Amino acid sequence: MAKWIWKFGEFEAYHNLILHDRRQQYGCPEPVVWKMYAPEPVVIFQKKVTTPGGIFHIHACGHVSTSVQTGPNPWEVKKFGGKTDILLEAGTVTIQIRVSNLKTFPSIYVDGVIESDESWEADDLSMHFEPVGVSDLFVDREKTPEIFPFSYRPISYINKEKAGKGVLFDYGKETFAAVRLYHLGDKKVRVNFGESREEALDDEWSVIHFVQEPKEGELSYPPCAFRYVYVSDEKAEAEAKYEYLPLAYRGSFQCEDELINRVWDAAAYTFHLNSREFFLDGIKRDRWVWSADAYQSLFVNRYLFLDQEIEKRTLTALGGKAPFKRHINTIMDYTFFWMIGVKEYYQTYGDRKFVRQILPQMKEVVAFCEGRESSDGFMREKPGDWIFIDWAPMDKEGALCGEQILYAKALECYGELLKAAQSLSIGEEYLQKAQRLYKLIMEKFYDKEKEVFIDSYESGRRSVTRHSNILAYLFLPCSKKQKKDIYEKVILNEEVRQITTPYFKFYENQVHCLEGNGTLLEESIRQYYGSMLETGATTLYEEYDPDMTGTEHYAMYGNPYEKSLCHAWSASPIYLLGAFRLGVQNTRVAYETFDVRPDLGDLKSFSGKVPVPGGEVEVIANEKEIRVWTDISGGTLWVNGKAHRLPAGKETVVKTR
Amino acid sequence: MAKWIWKFGEFEAYHNLILHDRRQQYGCPEPVVWKMYAPEPVVIFQKKVTTPGGIFHIHACGHVSTSVQTGPNPWEVKKFGGKTDILLEAGTVTIQIRVSNLKTFPSIYVDGVIESDESWEADDLSMHFEPVGVSDLFVDREKTPEIFPFSYRPISYINKEKAGKGVLFDYGKETFAAVRLYHLGDKKVRVNFGESREEALDDEWSVIHFVQEPKEGELSYPPCAFRYVYVSDEKAEAEAKYEYLPLAYRGSFQCEDELINRVWDAAAYTFHLNSREFFLDGIKRDRWVWSADAYQSLFVNRYLFLDQEIEKRTLTALGGKAPFKRHINTIMDYTFFWMIGVKEYYQTYGDRKFVRQILPQMKEVVAFCEGRESSDGFMREKPGDWIFIDWAPMDKEGALCGEQILYAKALECYGELLKAAQSLSIGEEYLQKAQRLYKLIMEKFYDKEKEVFIDSYESGRRSVTRHSNILAYLFLPCSKKQKKDIYEKVILNEEVRQITTPYFKFYENQVHCLEGNGTLLEESIRQYYGSMLETGATTLYEEYDPDMTGTEHYAMYGNPYEKSLCHAWSASPIYLLGAFRLGVQNTRVAYETFDVRPDLGDLKSFSGKVPVPGGEVEVIANEKEIRVWTDISGGTLWVNGKAHRLPAGKETVVKTR
Repeated sequence: MAKWIWKFGEFEAYHNLILHDRRQQYGCPEPVVWKMYAPEPVVIFQKKVTTPGGIFHIHACGHVSTSVQTGPNPWEVKKFGGKTDILLEAGTVTIQIRVSNLKTFPSIYVDGVIESDESWEADDLSMHFEPVGVSDLFVDREKTPEIFPFSYRPISYINKEKAGKGVLFDYGKETFAAVRLYHLGDKKVRVNFGESREEALDDEWSVIHFVQEPKEGELSYPPCAFRYVYVSDEKAEAEAKYEYLPLAYRGSFQCEDELINRVWDAAAYTFHLNSREFFLDGIKRDRWVWSADAYQSLFVNRYLFLDQEIEKRTLTALGGKAPFKRHINTIMDYTFFWMIGVKEYYQTYGDRKFVRQILPQMKEVVAFCEGRESSDGFMREKPGDWIFIDWAPMDKEGALCGEQILYAKALECYGELLKAAQSLSIGEEYLQKAQRLYKLIMEKFYDKEKEVFIDSYESGRRSVTRHSNILAYLFLPCSKKQKKDIYEKVILNEEVRQITTPYFKFYENQVHCLEGNGTLLEESIRQYYGSMLETGATTLYEEYDPDMTGTEHYAMYGNPYEKSLCHAWSASPIYLLGAFRLGVQNTRVAYETFDVRPDLGDLKSFSGKVPVPGGEVEVIANEKEIRVWTDISGGTLWVNGKAHRLPAGKETVVKTR
Repeated sequence: MAKWIWKFGEFEAYHNLILHDRRQQYGCPEPVVWKMYAPEPVVIFQKKVTTPGGIFHIHACGHVSTSVQTGPNPWEVKKFGGKTDILLEAGTVTIQIRVSNLKTFPSIYVDGVIESDESWEADDLSMHFEPVGVSDLFVDREKTPEIFPFSYRPISYINKEKAGKGVLFDYGKETFAAVRLYHLGDKKVRVNFGESREEALDDEWSVIHFVQEPKEGELSYPPCAFRYVYVSDEKAEAEAKYEYLPLAYRGSFQCEDELINRVWDAAAYTFHLNSREFFLDGIKRDRWVWSADAYQSLFVNRYLFLDQEIEKRTLTALGGKAPFKRHINTIMDYTFFWMIGVKEYYQTYGDRKFVRQILPQMKEVVAFCEGRESSDGFMREKPGDWIFIDWAPMDKEGALCGEQILYAKALECYGELLKAAQSLSIGEEYLQKAQRLYKLIMEKFYDKEKEVFIDSYESGRRSVTRHSNILAYLFLPCSKKQKKDIYEKVILNEEVRQITTPYFKFYENQVHCLEGNGTLLEESIRQYYGSMLETGATTLYEEYDPDMTGTEHYAMYGNPYEKSLCHAWSASPIYLLGAFRLGVQNTRVAYETFDVRPDLGDLKSFSGKVPVPGGEVEVIANEKEIRVWTDISGGTLWVNGKAHRLPAGKETVVKTR
């Protein structure tokens, strides 16, 4: 079957570029704050084919010129210039189709006696032919990869009321839609979009607002995030089209606690709104692709959509292009999370082909990192680096513990990916390098007196944070004792400053769950997300403090409505409930083997599904029994320490009492 | 004075890109055949300023976001978002203006209390702030660098006649113009542009032709090259606007031989048509930027326009961007000519600032070359390399002599440029490397028996061509004896296959002139270019064979009209007459010192001007006396081996008999 093809990475480079140029802030577009990579303007597509002869047709985004090499000598070339219907004689020839496209990016669709598909190669005229990029989204000749194929559905406001000099439309919940206003007069109209009512009514501080003159009584806006729309013309009428990626909700979770069910639903909707061309951070403000946010989205996706394509697109876009001269999103840890994320992708889908396609870019990134190592192998801040880890006080003097842990882990992942792609000896080198770094981290950052990890060994302050210890717990080869110490001396220690962001709660909750701390997950979900919903949230916020009231909830970064009220990283309950309550976890590559370890936590019963490559796993549990259905083999159900092999296509029932 | 500013190189990258996407061939656009480099989509402009306070205004190509750093700490930043009128308080601050532009390239113009100019820096968010690019062409706020500022002048056809089913317009001479047709019917119209009458009348083989339906009786075309336009509608009327770069003809040459004067004029017009955004090869077919063609244009420009800006633009565009992965224009020798060309530029203008700006790209190119050296230091063919030198048979087995000569010279030039930019020790390294390579070339390619250079020492064939020996003469540190041998045993040896391209005639004629071979230059000009004009040429052809007749003159590359009838490399008489008849030659950097060595050749008298930085040098000579006027000091007039110092602003007269 013919497909649209492009030079690998260019589809993502192009859509990443336009995506990052769409931010609106206080009436103006707001350019992105990190390095962007433009698509290649000219690409050659190539394939050696053997045919009985016949015509092929070229459909292109761009200008084309085709040549057919009929023999090994330079002069055995037939040139067809810009012709797009080309007659091949019987035999074996090499087709080269050169395409220029300065507006979007070069891509082609070939049908007839030969067809474009993943067996073609592409080169940006630098003599590095590599397998092309393709996507299941682009198999229709009429739907070019220049336009991202979102779905659209009309939505209606649930309330319209007079407000100020105009009207306020309420769409009932957070959405992402293209709005058309009509019945407008001919004067300039102010339009404020708001995630909250207050935001929509604030002319100055609504993040997305426009002041424009209607044309023939109408104004239209590109899709953006809102629940409320204020229009300064009281005769205004509005219609809206919800724009979304049609992803199937393959994962599910229900229990007897309706609040937890509501959180799960809100998390799923929040995550869906943020799952578009790529995994976005939030749907209103940045709408950008942040590497560590995307890393967490990999885990949520695995328990909700298991959409492999969005993971590939996101990882490809984040990797950028050569020359790679600055950390992803400018943040050191985010570069490392990207590398770990590629390994997570491989682990989930076992997709060696993608690993081979993205490895050249990883090589660039690793070379960049290695060029910035201190002589001891640690990564210290250089001009332009943002040493982030989290919004939290940390002792960042000298080498920061968390960065070293993530760097070592990233190198280990790189080594494993190289080995998966058959670069055995280089892979082994990086595994060894990671091991050396692990050892050095243990030596320098593990405080033998405190028996936990310290942020900085160079400052002499020996300060202990949850962050360094959570990262050590999750990414370092810690001993059982070290893990227990971390859990008891740091995580359960109220004197150690609490995590305040849902971003890092994701990791902390993993630790709780890994430690088997029975009821903390439900408690945390109820307290944090449950109370968020009780303030009227329809999607999950970037950050939330139960002690705040009213519009306090909407403020962030020093501005009254800059908080994102629909933020992907808050969708972690989907992952946590799937992985630690339904308990389905991949244990090898691509669920070749997997565990099911149902854990009721403080619930009495639950049922739910986890999508897996090739099907799904359904888990139903109550205080008496556990029922598991799986479409695929390789599963092991663990109940009270006992293993039960899970046959495919059959229900397994285990009594627990 | 405020100017438009951009990240250095991006203006050229953008215009180079659109220029290379404009080729038309047999009714279709024809994409370029070498690697193109896209502009950076997002750039930060930065300057530290001290002001008494006041407003500044930002005019941008793209979306902007401005921040003002008021102190050394990260939080001492005022963010102005997309505001373009910004109030500064008195004091010292660092302004950062971030600009995104996905359609063209980011650039800004700032006026008010601060102004944008060459003192600003730019960075593509990779933390490499470098001085911005500017141009004298863009000092007007209303004229953005997105549009190249050509001049336009209406031109009229000199004849209109019925031809076939339509009409043929004759504009009297080769031109480059935008044509608008009107009084057309509503049926599809065929329009053929032709450099020759025959081409315009050939529906199949006219290189630039269109078949389109008129809109309201009209059709318009982007500027292209032609003398004739055929329109298949006999009611058609045409108007045309000549598009050109308004360059002053500062050089001149007149003598008593009207044919030579006509050749000079045709060469000047030919060269002017090809001097646009950059130096082009020819104005009809490719309209691309070829490095070695451009290299020769540097010399012609020096004796006609002395336009520094077009040299900078051309060299910048050719250098491409990182990652540099393939030879310029795919041709190994063209990469070397680019490097030598940058040195030529420095030699002519003494512009250290430009050298410093282009050195990072040269570094990339040199690293690319060094990565491809064989273990002996020679450059041998790698996949994708075009080993060109000239359209001529040559023994290209193993290392080719000409490539090694040019590589050594290019490294020497790189070393000298590094030293000019104060990178003394690295510069010295490259000078030494060049010396080592020169020595190795002498050792391997100089045939002691034949006493000249051979193409290949690896094939065992010891074949001798003009090419290798001309390049050795011009670029190697040959001894006097070696030069004399080359001249006598190769250049004057009719048994050695002749040069057939004006491209390489440029170098061969230099050798003749350097050997002081009295009348050859005039003879060659009359025979080759003079007879070209006598066949009706109004501009100088890419190639010319006096033995051909009729339309044979127009054929090339296997197609009947693919020859370029207006080709820059044929303008060399301007350089040769200026440098070796008027005899004005720069002898240090930027004409700090220069020689005037008038040589009548086989002429009785001539007068002419050569532009120099800061003025011009006028030379009038006949068989009795030489008169020289110079605006600048540093000149030495050489007559019969005797030196006469040339005072500035005064005429010097020397009797020769």
